[in-house]
Amino acid sequence: MQFRYLHQVRARNPLVHCITNIVVTQFSANGLLAIGASPFMSTMAEEAEDIQHFAQALLINIGTINRSDVEAMLVAGKAANRVGIPVVLDPVGAGVTEYRRNITRRLLAEIRFSAIRGNAGEMAYLAGVEWQSKGVDAGRGNGDPSEIVHKVARQYHCIGALSGATDFISDGEKIVKIKNGSPLFPQVTGSGCLLGAIIAAYLGVAAANDRFNAVLEACAAYAVAGECAAQGLDRRSGDFALELINQLALLEDSTICARAEVEYV
Amino acid sequence: MQFRYLHQVRARNPLVHCITNIVVTQFSANGLLAIGASPFMSTMAEEAEDIQHFAQALLINIGTINRSDVEAMLVAGKAANRVGIPVVLDPVGAGVTEYRRNITRRLLAEIRFSAIRGNAGEMAYLAGVEWQSKGVDAGRGNGDPSEIVHKVARQYHCIGALSGATDFISDGEKIVKIKNGSPLFPQVTGSGCLLGAIIAAYLGVAAANDRFNAVLEACAAYAVAGECAAQGLDRRSGDFALELINQLALLEDSTICARAEVEYV
Amino acid sequence: MQFRYLHQVRARNPLVHCITNIVVTQFSANGLLAIGASPFMSTMAEEAEDIQHFAQALLINIGTINRSDVEAMLVAGKAANRVGIPVVLDPVGAGVTEYRRNITRRLLAEIRFSAIRGNAGEMAYLAGVEWQSKGVDAGRGNGDPSEIVHKVARQYHCIGALSGATDFISDGEKIVKIKNGSPLFPQVTGSGCLLGAIIAAYLGVAAANDRFNAVLEACAAYAVAGECAAQGLDRRSGDFALELINQLALLEDSTICARAEVEYV
Repeated sequence: MQFRYLHQVRARNPLVHCITNIVVTQFSANGLLAIGASPFMSTMAEEAEDIQHFAQALLINIGTINRSDVEAMLVAGKAANRVGIPVVLDPVGAGVTEYRRNITRRLLAEIRFSAIRGNAGEMAYLAGVEWQSKGVDAGRGNGDPSEIVHKVARQYHCIGALSGATDFISDGEKIVKIKNGSPLFPQVTGSGCLLGAIIAAYLGVAAANDRFNAVLEACAAYAVAGECAAQGLDRRSGDFALELINQLALLEDSTICARAEVEYV
Repeated sequence: MQFRYLHQVRARNPLVHCITNIVVTQFSANGLLAIGASPFMSTMAEEAEDIQHFAQALLINIGTINRSDVEAMLVAGKAANRVGIPVVLDPVGAGVTEYRRNITRRLLAEIRFSAIRGNAGEMAYLAGVEWQSKGVDAGRGNGDPSEIVHKVARQYHCIGALSGATDFISDGEKIVKIKNGSPLFPQVTGSGCLLGAIIAAYLGVAAANDRFNAVLEACAAYAVAGECAAQGLDRRSGDFALELINQLALLEDSTICARAEVEYV
Repeated sequence: MQFRYLHQVRARNPLVHCITNIVVTQFSANGLLAIGASPFMSTMAEEAEDIQHFAQALLINIGTINRSDVEAMLVAGKAANRVGIPVVLDPVGAGVTEYRRNITRRLLAEIRFSAIRGNAGEMAYLAGVEWQSKGVDAGRGNGDPSEIVHKVARQYHCIGALSGATDFISDGEKIVKIKNGSPLFPQVTGSGCLLGAIIAAYLGVAAANDRFNAVLEACAAYAVAGECAAQGLDRRSGDFALELINQLALLEDSTICARAEVEYV
């Protein structure tokens, strides 16, 4: 498999507007800088429209959303849709409280998303598949992740990315799985959120008809960077969070090509 | 002394709802993951009641509290009291501004706390003992910390944990001190806040009649992890913050048993 | 050149009230602790006046500003002006949206700033010089940075500090440049914001008639710490963020004296 987008992200330095949660702002911004993108962290509705005119992509992450964040998300999302830049949804803990269910429903009704990234529990909720989520963690369920991601992609007309020990990506037709990664990922808060941001960066340099490949490459690059970062760390999750940023900055196409285990389902 | 709770935290992975300040969200979440708990960071009043139905413990930290945070704290705290899960208060800078004094008073009047963790200045304020706090730092005073923590425990019918170079824990009867730790702790923002979160995780797996031991074990485990983390670091507070997360993830009962210096006062 | 202020910051441990953005709170607080100051992170208007009575300096950073933050900034800034403590402005992304332009204008009209620190794009906007900013990054322009910083200093009657690969500092008469630093600085989110906070700490221990030297020393100390931190790191921006905190904690006057490349323009 050929990887083309990392190079483009670095060459074009896409500005990614992140409306994200208060836990992961710093980690997301540093991760975006490391991969070669330019983060713009703003949750203000007052400037949410303006930003879409110079941003290359928008990320909406509902990890912590107060009332004014929702307003900013709606203004930004609709403006991004008008301008035509890609919008990524990260539905953190989407199904676990009535509040999050309502907000997720509203965002999905009013904004067209180019991609949705979540863990198994969040994607199962969006797909209407039964699942036992645990707060913002993936939890447990019997659903087949490849079916879940396929459903999300079809239902919301977007690229679905279900991330976990194995990642599943679908455009509603094709389904691909990526076996790279590390058990240290879920030990670092915001590691899923950063993947959502990196997907946005990749989409920011991709043509509208090649979004499946862009999301696939983003997930593969991230999983490979994590695999490299985890080497020799045992349970040291502090080191992993730091080394993940280093490896994103050091990542080369040749490393991704050599290590990525991508398979069509 | 026997240590039993670290094992239980890892086995039962308690979900800790943290309504905490914007400075320490990431560090607290990563520290909770490292010790074996599942952090749920949310400051939204709209979902504060819902969360208590699947959380095992609630942490309320007033480090930075806007109006909507106060509302979330009150909704969450009362719901947690109804449901019967433990609630921990971290009264950051409690005495230093009129605004914090008012909020602290209101929280203490409307919510029953299972434990209160603070530095000497914050606990002295709660105990009504004169003290020269310095912002959110402990400051200086002549009060006896064992008397202060004893007073807090009696006055608010909870476990008091006064943390500093030496930690003092009391249930209003017994008083214990823990001599482990490191001078690097106060050099890392949120190191006290993370202890508050870990106390909540420990209480989340403890029986209501064994909370003194759970808080004591949480403090001892944390102080020992810090002691291990600080080895050879001189003044390198950046490394300390990271290594503390690593050591929490690597911590074993045997290490705590071998190193903990716990004494009844 | 003689460096006198690092010693004073460590001896007097100035309390710096930071009203700053949600991306950089933890990094700024840890950096302030490392240099020897005491951070107080609060964005609540309700306590913004109280805090000026025990703070030694105030930092106002507009990286992410919701409506209540603006209120806190105005209350705090005016109170700091009345009390006579120094106030630093960090106009993050000042020119890039209408919302930021309005807030910047209002802050500059209602508060007297002792120092303003920004990147080339932000300072060019304040000076009314044409520049192509890119979100919160410096962007590109043809303006001469020494003229820009000189203009900002004259126009707002303050010390201007334009930071980048080379830093420029001016009091409206003298202009100085500092050639130390590292290309890794812009790869770490909040590295400029932390410099703003450290400038505030230095001003908190300086006499009102020596603010130019205090800002100059703060910038030189920070750039030298970054230079030391970057050694051998290649593109490892994760390591750089951490090592910068370490180097601030380990920094000695002799290191600054030996390495600082300060030149009058």
